Amino acid sequence: MIQNSLCSLLQLQYPIIQGGMVYASGYKLASACSKAGILGVLGAGSMSLDILEQQLIKLKKKVQDRPVAVNIPLLYSKVNEQVDLCLKHGIKIFITSAGSPKIFTKKLKEAGCTVLHVVSNDDLAAKCEDAGVDAVIAEGFEAGGHNGRDELTTLTLIPLVKKRVSIPVIAAGGIASGEAIAAMMVLGADGVQMGTRFLMTQESSVHENYKNLLRESTSHSTELVMKKVVPVRLWKNEFYQKIKKKEESDATKEELVNLLGKGRARKGMLEGDMVEGELEIGQVCGLIKDLPKVDDLVKDLVSQYNLALSRISKF
Amino acid sequence: MIQNSLCSLLQLQYPIIQGGMVYASGYKLASACSKAGILGVLGAGSMSLDILEQQLIKLKKKVQDRPVAVNIPLLYSKVNEQVDLCLKHGIKIFITSAGSPKIFTKKLKEAGCTVLHVVSNDDLAAKCEDAGVDAVIAEGFEAGGHNGRDELTTLTLIPLVKKRVSIPVIAAGGIASGEAIAAMMVLGADGVQMGTRFLMTQESSVHENYKNLLRESTSHSTELVMKKVVPVRLWKNEFYQKIKKKEESDATKEELVNLLGKGRARKGMLEGDMVEGELEIGQVCGLIKDLPKVDDLVKDLVSQYNLALSRISKF
Repeated sequence: MIQNSLCSLLQLQYPIIQGGMVYASGYKLASACSKAGILGVLGAGSMSLDILEQQLIKLKKKVQDRPVAVNIPLLYSKVNEQVDLCLKHGIKIFITSAGSPKIFTKKLKEAGCTVLHVVSNDDLAAKCEDAGVDAVIAEGFEAGGHNGRDELTTLTLIPLVKKRVSIPVIAAGGIASGEAIAAMMVLGADGVQMGTRFLMTQESSVHENYKNLLRESTSHSTELVMKKVVPVRLWKNEFYQKIKKKEESDATKEELVNLLGKGRARKGMLEGDMVEGELEIGQVCGLIKDLPKVDDLVKDLVSQYNLALSRISKF
Repeated sequence: MIQNSLCSLLQLQYPIIQGGMVYASGYKLASACSKAGILGVLGAGSMSLDILEQQLIKLKKKVQDRPVAVNIPLLYSKVNEQVDLCLKHGIKIFITSAGSPKIFTKKLKEAGCTVLHVVSNDDLAAKCEDAGVDAVIAEGFEAGGHNGRDELTTLTLIPLVKKRVSIPVIAAGGIASGEAIAAMMVLGADGVQMGTRFLMTQESSVHENYKNLLRESTSHSTELVMKKVVPVRLWKNEFYQKIKKKEESDATKEELVNLLGKGRARKGMLEGDMVEGELEIGQVCGLIKDLPKVDDLVKDLVSQYNLALSRISKF
């Protein structure tokens, strides 16, 4: 294990967290990541209680005693039951997001767990530290899916958050290579979280149609839209075009909510409808052309990281 | 001189460019930067031909044979005359922006000059290389002032551009410390351009009111607005609030152009009207609390850079 506050906190070989993502990060992805020496994360956001329990059982069987976490977005109705189910199945690391860090941190800490919370600005990071959170994941504007309102990019956000808290700070958003990991560590981050890069692997559970579509991404493929509702970064498919058209015709929040309807992300990311589905993804998709196995990917990231540091010299 | 493609190209001690900024980068700032071992840049965008000539004469006297550049945004009417004036006064390095790299590159190269062009995506970077540009400045979403439509952040943009061109790539947007310079160099950039950080110095020519206001900046202080006209990142003063209100009431492009009127940036940044002026600035303003002299700042940046690299170790 390298000398690093995040590795010490979570007992990891490398200070890398696989982002919890709806419809992408089931037990297969999470366990592959945990076995590769990084933190695997089950994304509970899109799971019913039944599915979550099945996933937890399979996950624990696969990872055994290696560190593994569950990501629980706090905006769904069954979060209390989700947390209790995770505790029942022996989850010791929780990543909470999209809500106040005060809701579960005390309960989870009393149960002997480690708690990380996702933030998009430094004020929320300070509140996390006050609430007893062990580390914050600071996620920038370039990240996929739901996003903060301040539109702080990862490069700006990390130094802002480092100034405000003394707990470990994990950089997220815009990171898809070992060079980018090294850049964030040099900037002052204690570790990184990568979502899009792990969504584009053999073990992620999104539909093959989506993985294939993503390989065609360019620098123009995503945009942060739905700012009148909740900002979300989407791949620019036909459904995105419908949202964009509505927004350009000055649609109200209600009209946008109606257009979105129910189950759009499931339709796209899990069921493979590339026309009518909502496709959440980060800006870095334009940099990724392959669909490796997780174990090979982690080895590559480590090599790229070390090579990036070999090439750099002092002024 | 360190071993670096940008230092070789421009004969610099450090691979750092001071961003050309309207009303901020006159001969005082540009000459102080050139004397400190980085590239000083006169921002011609806001200058009449008379003022530009006066500035060029003072600049050349101050910097003598050290490298110095002029930044010429290609959206103004007098660009041909501006270019000729710069050539007449012996300028050898040109930074062009906000237009096609085809317009001046051939002429400037034939006159023995070095040409850099500002880009916000990788497609334009490839066009620059085809047009004979010597290096591109790739500027991300977090940068101050006018900005690209793809909203690519610096962290995402640099690897995209590096993949497409073989000329040096300079990272811009979100860089205000030696740690951030090191992060960009580790990511693969050949150098950096910093605007906001040099605007907040003793030698920059913006009004004292503006410098003092900027010291109160937080992570919530800027936003990219005016997307129906030309996207621009502004400090959130009362004039910004007027724009925001118009945009939220679904104002047309024409209404926004009328609200902006003429001379708003001059009123704010040069004349010090913090209420009605247009205040262009980057997201990193929230990280900067001091107004150092350029020479001290560059020394600090170099120390921070070296310290950041000392602290990092391989996996």
